[in-house]
Amino acid sequence: MRYFIQFSYDGTHYYGYQRQPGHISVQEKLESALSKLLRKEIKTVGAGRTDTGVHASEMYAHFNWEEELPDQLVRKLNSFLPSDISIHALFRVKDSAHARFDARERVYKYRISTKKNPFKQRYHAQFLFYQFDVDKMNRAAKILLEYKDFTSFSKLHSDNKTNDCYIYQAEWKQYEDELVFTISANRFLRNMVRAIVGTLMDIGRGKIEENEFRNIIEKKNRKFASTSAPAKGLTLEKVIYPKEINYET
Amino acid sequence: MRYFIQFSYDGTHYYGYQRQPGHISVQEKLESALSKLLRKEIKTVGAGRTDTGVHASEMYAHFNWEEELPDQLVRKLNSFLPSDISIHALFRVKDSAHARFDARERVYKYRISTKKNPFKQRYHAQFLFYQFDVDKMNRAAKILLEYKDFTSFSKLHSDNKTNDCYIYQAEWKQYEDELVFTISANRFLRNMVRAIVGTLMDIGRGKIEENEFRNIIEKKNRKFASTSAPAKGLTLEKVIYPKEINYET
Repeated sequence: MRYFIQFSYDGTHYYGYQRQPGHISVQEKLESALSKLLRKEIKTVGAGRTDTGVHASEMYAHFNWEEELPDQLVRKLNSFLPSDISIHALFRVKDSAHARFDARERVYKYRISTKKNPFKQRYHAQFLFYQFDVDKMNRAAKILLEYKDFTSFSKLHSDNKTNDCYIYQAEWKQYEDELVFTISANRFLRNMVRAIVGTLMDIGRGKIEENEFRNIIEKKNRKFASTSAPAKGLTLEKVIYPKEINYET
Repeated sequence: MRYFIQFSYDGTHYYGYQRQPGHISVQEKLESALSKLLRKEIKTVGAGRTDTGVHASEMYAHFNWEEELPDQLVRKLNSFLPSDISIHALFRVKDSAHARFDARERVYKYRISTKKNPFKQRYHAQFLFYQFDVDKMNRAAKILLEYKDFTSFSKLHSDNKTNDCYIYQAEWKQYEDELVFTISANRFLRNMVRAIVGTLMDIGRGKIEENEFRNIIEKKNRKFASTSAPAKGLTLEKVIYPKEINYET
C-alpha cells in the first residue's frame, strides 16, 4: 500500500530537501521519524528536490507500508520532528501513484524585501539599494512562456534527460515594500527559479537590457544568465496532482 | 534640538530593549550606531522597555543633537545596525517632547499558532494541544477595561510609583490556525501583557474558571495569575503620540 505525506519546512538549516551523505536534509529527518514510529526502515520518494536553504509550504513524498498505520501518526510525527518541519496530512493513494512523476505542476514564489525589515529576514531576500522596474520584469517574465528549453538557467552537469519545461505562469507583483514572483511549471531544472529571478532582477534594475532576455534563453548556456538569487527568498508553494492518484477513485 | 527615531526590531537575540550591563540590548546597539555616526556619545530615551525576546514593529526613542545631522543618516544607521534592527524614520520634535512621557497609547499584539507551522516559529508562541474557547477569553478580556490597578499581572519589586493603567482595548481574534490578542493602554507594567495572556489562555482552555478572572485582578497579587506566556509571541505594534510633539506645530 502506498501513502502520500503532505508537509512543509523552513529550509534555513537544511542542506536541501534530498538526502545527501554527510549533510542534514529534510528527507533524512522525515525518513528517520517515519522509520522510528513504524519500527522499520522507510524510504520515501519526494515530489522533487529543493536546494540548500529553500523552503516549502506544501511538499509531498510517498512511501510504502503494508501493515496498519499506528493511531495519530501525523501528530506523533510532528512531535518527533523538529519545529522547522511540519506534517500536514498522510493519506493512502493508489499503489501506482508517484510523488515525483505524477506531479502535474509545481508553484514557487520568490520574495524580495525592498526595505530593511527585521521580520523579513528569513523568507525574503533583501535588496534595499536598487530601483526595480517591475513592468520591465513582467514583460521579460512573459517571454518565458514562449520557450521550453531552459538550459540557460540550469546548473551544469544536471542528470536530466531533457531540459524541457512547460511554464504556465511567471509574474511579479509589487507591494509596498516587497516584490513577489510567482512561477509555475510542470517541472523545473536544478537552480532554475533562482537563476531566472536573478536575471529578471538584473533586467529590473537596468543592468541587462530588456530585449537581451530572449537572447539569454536562446543561448542555452548558463553563463549568459545572471547570478542566482539567494536561496532564502524561495519557497515551493504547492505541488498539484491529478485526482486519479487518490485511493478511492 | 531633540529628535525622535522610529524603528523596529526582532527581539529574539536581545536581552530586552533597555540597556543592561553585561547583556546585549537593542538600546545599546542603537546608541552605539548613533554615537559612531555622529562621532559623539549619544544617549537615548525609549518609549518604554520590552522584555527579553519581545519584538517591536514600531518603537520610538528620543535623543538630543545640536549640530547639523549628516546626510542620509537613516540609511547609514541601517547599514551600520544588524539586520534585526531597522530605522524607519528620524524627525525633529519640540525640545520638550519626550519619547516615554508623551506616549499616549501603546498597542501590543500577542500571536499564538495552534498548528505546527515552520514559518511561525519566530513571532508566534505555539500551543498545539489545547482547545481554546475564544468567546470565554474575550468575555474575560473585556473585564480588564473595568479596572486600572493591574498589580496582579506585574512583576514584583517594580519601581513604578503607581500600578494604574488605562486599558482601551483587549480583544482576541481567531483565524484558521492562529489566535491574535490585541491590547492597548496608556501604559503597561513590566511583564503585564504576557501575564494577562497566560491567564486568559488558562481560562480559554478551562484550567481557570471564567468568573475567577475578576477575583484574580482584585487580589492585586501576582501569585494568583497564571504563568506568563512566552516572550516570542509578543510584539509592540505601535506607540501613539499627540500631534503637539512635532517641531512644526
